[in-house]
This record gives sequence, C-alpha cells and structure tokens, in this order.
Amino acid sequence: MNVFVIGIGLIGGSLAIDIKAAFNEAVCFGIDANADNLDQAVALRFIDHKATMADLGTADVVILAIPVDVALSVLPVVLDAIHDDCLVFDVGSTKQKLCAAVADHAKRRNYLAAHPIAGTEFSGPKAAIANLYRGKANIICEIEKTAFKLQERAMEIFTRLGMQIRYMDPASHDKHIAYVSHLSHISAFMLGKTVIEKEKNERDIFDMAGSGFASTVRLAKSSPAMWTPIFKQNKENVIETLEEYIANLTQFKKMIEEEQFDEIYKEMEATNHIKTILKGIS
Amino acid sequence: MNVFVIGIGLIGGSLAIDIKAAFNEAVCFGIDANADNLDQAVALRFIDHKATMADLGTADVVILAIPVDVALSVLPVVLDAIHDDCLVFDVGSTKQKLCAAVADHAKRRNYLAAHPIAGTEFSGPKAAIANLYRGKANIICEIEKTAFKLQERAMEIFTRLGMQIRYMDPASHDKHIAYVSHLSHISAFMLGKTVIEKEKNERDIFDMAGSGFASTVRLAKSSPAMWTPIFKQNKENVIETLEEYIANLTQFKKMIEEEQFDEIYKEMEATNHIKTILKGIS
Repeated sequence: MNVFVIGIGLIGGSLAIDIKAAFNEAVCFGIDANADNLDQAVALRFIDHKATMADLGTADVVILAIPVDVALSVLPVVLDAIHDDCLVFDVGSTKQKLCAAVADHAKRRNYLAAHPIAGTEFSGPKAAIANLYRGKANIICEIEKTAFKLQERAMEIFTRLGMQIRYMDPASHDKHIAYVSHLSHISAFMLGKTVIEKEKNERDIFDMAGSGFASTVRLAKSSPAMWTPIFKQNKENVIETLEEYIANLTQFKKMIEEEQFDEIYKEMEATNHIKTILKGIS
Repeated sequence: MNVFVIGIGLIGGSLAIDIKAAFNEAVCFGIDANADNLDQAVALRFIDHKATMADLGTADVVILAIPVDVALSVLPVVLDAIHDDCLVFDVGSTKQKLCAAVADHAKRRNYLAAHPIAGTEFSGPKAAIANLYRGKANIICEIEKTAFKLQERAMEIFTRLGMQIRYMDPASHDKHIAYVSHLSHISAFMLGKTVIEKEKNERDIFDMAGSGFASTVRLAKSSPAMWTPIFKQNKENVIETLEEYIANLTQFKKMIEEEQFDEIYKEMEATNHIKTILKGIS
C-alpha cells in the first residue's frame, strides 16, 4: 500500500507513524514544500521516500495534511493526478469550503472529508508522535459522496489507528468546531497577548504564573501558519463565537463593577457543569 | 510543633500532608466550618485532631487556608487568640486587603502574608495531594513586618516543602496576579459558559472537543466559593485586566471581519513568544 502524505508535520507525520505501525505493507511517501521537513521526516524514519506531485499516479492512499487554504488549491490537483482506485482524504479543521471546492470534480468519489480531533500545540515533523489519534474522534463529512470501497479502506485505516468515527455535514461541522476548538485558540492567543503586553517590562513576573495560567494559555503556542487560514475559512462562525464570548466577558465585568457577587457565584457554579462534559477528554 | 490548619481543603490539606512528612514533630490540628470536611481530613490522616478556635492558644503555627473574604474577619480573631511566639500565615490569592485589615493589630508581627502559587482545579480535603508546592513560587508580602524568629520558622517550612520564595509588596502582588491568575480563571469560565450555552441542545457535540478545549477551559472547574471573594477583593485590578482582554478580543474580531489576515498571522506569531515564557511551568 503506497501512502502519500502531503505535509509531513505534526498531523501528517503522526498519521504516517501509526499507519506504518498498523500496516506491514504500507510504504510512506512524503511530499512537502519545505525540503528540511522532508529530510527530517526521512531521518525520523516515518517517511520511507521523498516524493513529488508527479509521483501521485502510484498512490493507493493520499493524505492531505496541509494548511486549509493551501488544501483548496492542492486537492483538485491531487484528484487530477491519482489513478481511479486511489483514496484521498484530508484532515483539516474546516470542511465546508474544501467540500465545495471539489463538489463537481470528476474524481469526487475518490475523496473523503475527515477531521481527526487530535493534535498538540507543537508543529513540524519532530512534533509527530505515535498513537496521537487513539481514542480520538474523527469527524467524517459527506460520507455518501465517497466510493464505497474507498470508504472501506479509509475506515480500515481509521479503525486500526483507534479513532472513533462521527458523521456530520460540513456546515454543522464548521459551526460546532468554531465553538469547541477555534474559539479556544483565540481565547488563549488573546490571553497570552494581554499578559505579555502588560508585563513586557516586568522580568520576573512570570515566576508568579502557575499551572493554571500555563493550561489556559497553552494553545497560544500553536502555529500561525496553520491557524490563520482556519480563521479565514471559518470567518462567519468564528465571528459569531467571538461575539458571544465577548458579550459574556463584558457581562461578567459589569457584574463585578456592580458588585453582583451572588450572580457571579451562580454563574461560575453553573459553568462547573463543564466537569461532567469534559469527563473522558484528556 | 502544633500546627493548626484553618480550612482543610485542597490548599490547607496539601500543606498539612507535606508538613507532616517534613517535620517529625508536627502534630496537625484541623479547624473547618464544614464538619464533614474535618471527618474526611482525619480519615485521610493528614489531620491528627479536630480542633476549634478556642484551642488556638496551644498553636505554634496557624495556617489560614480559607476564602479570602472570610480571612478578613478570621485573621484578627486568630491573632487575638494565639500566644506571643506563634506564627500565623495565610495562603490567599489577594494580599492587599488582608494586610490592611491587620496593619494596626497588636500582634501584626506574628503574621506573615504568603501566596504559594499552586493548586489544581479540584477542591475539598479529598483533593489534597503531597508535593503540591514543590518547585512552586511562594510570594511573601511585607516580610519586614513579621518578627524575625517567626520569619525563620516560616522559611524553614517553605524551604522544606520545596517552595521558591519571592518578595513583593501587596499592591504589586494583587496587580500582577490579576494578569497571570485571576484573568485566566475568568477567561476559562466564560469560554465554558459560551460553549455550554450554545451547545446545550446538542448532545453529541462535546465528542468534537479535543485536548485543546479541555486545557483552555480546565479552570472553569474551579470552586465558586473560593473565586467569588477573590474577584471581589481584587475588583479594580480584575476589571482592568478584563478591559484589556476584551479590547484585544474585539480587535482580533475586527481583523477577521476586515480580512486582515496578515496582521492576524503576525499577532499570533508574536504571541508564540509565550513558549519561552512558559518554559519551566508545568
């Protein structure tokens, strides 16, 4: 099984590691705009061979693990290049625009839209780790538009990697993921910005920061190259989440200003419900 | 050494566990408004004896680990009750109002204002753990107002527990801690609220939440009984941090609306600097 991974950073690299472990017959080919990344991936041995887009004709599986804006232009080119029995799936954090971009492509049935909910705040081939996807949800969109035998191949990969499959339409995916993922990233980035700006002349102040701050701001380490296009593609949904978040923060500030501390207590107590919701997410 | 812990939850309980491990001669007495908590602390064996405020005359060390509003009225009563050679320290997240409350107390020199930067999102005696304070900063305020030999006793405890001592005046403490701690809690609580409100009718949506969301929202599990009085006491500083945070979020939203994605990229890239800052905080 010839597996081509386009974009061999954290996400693509971690997929290559697990696919090589789960499929004896898998040979991993890496394609990346960054030659250093390719060298690293080969040195780390999760990519067997460097490749280019010209080699895609020999692929049985192509994984697109690149920023979501680049994916818009690369996916049609990949579909043009593959043979009729090749599966192509992407792993991007937005699904609506990419599904629309290939809706009328002659090889639409070779493509499966996927979004494994997994990652770390690090990036690049050296950030790739084994078992990143084990026990994690993988959202599949428009499953009915993918050829049946290629669905089966995809499910075999996802199942062996330990993913839990969920089905959703692209519009719902993009709307809900804005709340449970994209907003968290902006929240963390702006928290980091606010504190860094304030404390830029205070050398020792971060000695006062504890594990709580570190946890809340963790996602502010994330890659701008990955996240800028996500916010661009999911603009409307992200703006809506930000408006609600800002409104809630403004109301909380007003309650402090007006010393409505009983209300503040109740608000926090109600939000403690997140404990139950998060049970099982690590 | 008779150590009285007033408030035997996560913070007070974890101190009792470590003090008993570090000082053979330590006998821990527990005082708590909640009788169940006291029973649990005795069952968990980090409290040797239940006690009341009437017993404080026999104390060598009194630790105040109660919500910061209650501490304002309890600390003067404790100082009234202790003998002349007893050390009293608190561990609250605000320092200005408490220091002011006892500034003119006849036993001011028996008190040391402390804030160990440690905790988890859990609370109560069962949340108490060993080594919570190892390697963590402990901010000491107005050290010069504490009697020299009681400073020494406090430092012996803090050092054996592995804390790193930092000195700061109460006003600076409250200002900076608003940024690196209090704001993180509000940010997390409001993120939790925003997502719960939006998704309350969507049973399966939290399947889409990954470790990033869990990390960012973690502090929304924190105790309202502990945090409401902190926001009350540090009102002005907390409002200031919230205004800056809301302004940054609003500007970020505007950049998305106006499609200034180059600026968004630069902003996130600059905030990635948090990686360096957080190095060493787990």
